[in-house]
Amino acid sequence: MNIVLLDPRQTQSEIWSISSKRQIEHLITHVNVQVGDTLKVGVREGKRYLTEIVEITAQAIRVKALNEEVVPQKLPVTLIVAMPRPKVLRRLIMDSVTLGVEKIILLHSYRVDKSYWQSPFLQQLDQYVTLGLEQAGDTIAPQIEIYKRFKPFVEDVLPTLISSQTPAYVAHPYARVAMPFAIEHPCTMVIGPEGGFIPYEIELLEKNGCQAVSLGNRILRTETVISYVLGRLFSTT
Amino acid sequence: MNIVLLDPRQTQSEIWSISSKRQIEHLITHVNVQVGDTLKVGVREGKRYLTEIVEITAQAIRVKALNEEVVPQKLPVTLIVAMPRPKVLRRLIMDSVTLGVEKIILLHSYRVDKSYWQSPFLQQLDQYVTLGLEQAGDTIAPQIEIYKRFKPFVEDVLPTLISSQTPAYVAHPYARVAMPFAIEHPCTMVIGPEGGFIPYEIELLEKNGCQAVSLGNRILRTETVISYVLGRLFSTT
Repeated sequence: MNIVLLDPRQTQSEIWSISSKRQIEHLITHVNVQVGDTLKVGVREGKRYLTEIVEITAQAIRVKALNEEVVPQKLPVTLIVAMPRPKVLRRLIMDSVTLGVEKIILLHSYRVDKSYWQSPFLQQLDQYVTLGLEQAGDTIAPQIEIYKRFKPFVEDVLPTLISSQTPAYVAHPYARVAMPFAIEHPCTMVIGPEGGFIPYEIELLEKNGCQAVSLGNRILRTETVISYVLGRLFSTT
Repeated sequence: MNIVLLDPRQTQSEIWSISSKRQIEHLITHVNVQVGDTLKVGVREGKRYLTEIVEITAQAIRVKALNEEVVPQKLPVTLIVAMPRPKVLRRLIMDSVTLGVEKIILLHSYRVDKSYWQSPFLQQLDQYVTLGLEQAGDTIAPQIEIYKRFKPFVEDVLPTLISSQTPAYVAHPYARVAMPFAIEHPCTMVIGPEGGFIPYEIELLEKNGCQAVSLGNRILRTETVISYVLGRLFSTT
């Protein structure tokens, strides 16, 4: 946790109260905070501040804002990912949020086990978003959308995300073109499931405006590929 | 598992036997292999082959080599990481191996909890190396070295890893120079612990030839930062 995120309703008065058990426990046990220490606090969907701790009790840590700080910029990318296993989903959301992805789309695909859509983790996405934001020092949650039908999404929604200034890439091991790097424009990035998209899906993605690009001949896990690709695409930032 | 790794001793005769319980279970349960299917098999520290399955029993899956395949190249990088929490260590080793890191060095640092060095995971590194190689389709394990004393390592060992053709970078949030990208030479990359290196450590690293470089103002977790940085550094491959 590199910033404590508060709800705007917690920051109405001059003194703000950190009252979440998770946050208090972290601050007391791991950071060992003391009255008088400074603490980075973000207002969800709002600004970020350096604050000073004015009171610590078992129920609340109270802080007073000192200066406004800069909220890190987002990466101009829409990440479309075939719905992964629940455990991977958790990390994928946290990592994507930490890295600054602007919009995340979870998509069904042939090799996605249908049971993944029943995962209770799907109801807890906001928790993972919070953890990702607190790791990055960010305050703005990405948009998250869910599409449980591949074909209608690819035919009707995907084309609206693509333009000449915003190309879309799908990582595909057999593509002949290499994944671009250090791009200076927004883009949409499509990542397949474990085992990859089936040929029909790759064809449909290509037909609807995605360029299939290769990441070399190592096969990476979903969690690994996302940060690898984002590091590569947005090298210049 | 995108390749089945065998010990060279398992590949002495014309027919090779896959006899590890883990591998057999994966192939039968997840891949649903059948006699006559092809299967990618690698010989540890050796070559990689397309094979044909000739027999399946509960105790062994037997294969016959068809053609030799290309083993993916390594990234010319030495990764020096402050020893992470055991759970993170496991993923870090798997990911680094999958991504093709040539050499991994685990290092003590001020903010590394001493208990991490007692972790039983440290005795199981080779298992994680195997999983990482099997994910990537690689056969060659990276070198892994462990240094439990920061100062002697930085003063005596680190300089031997640096040359004008092989620079060393340490990721540091307050550095003014940005992390390079798409480099075309080998390098050494140093990643700090949760909470970062202390100023004394950064100074000692700089004094001994490391350049402190920044990854922007988002603070990434160790697991995330490694694939992010490797994607950025080796964009051209």
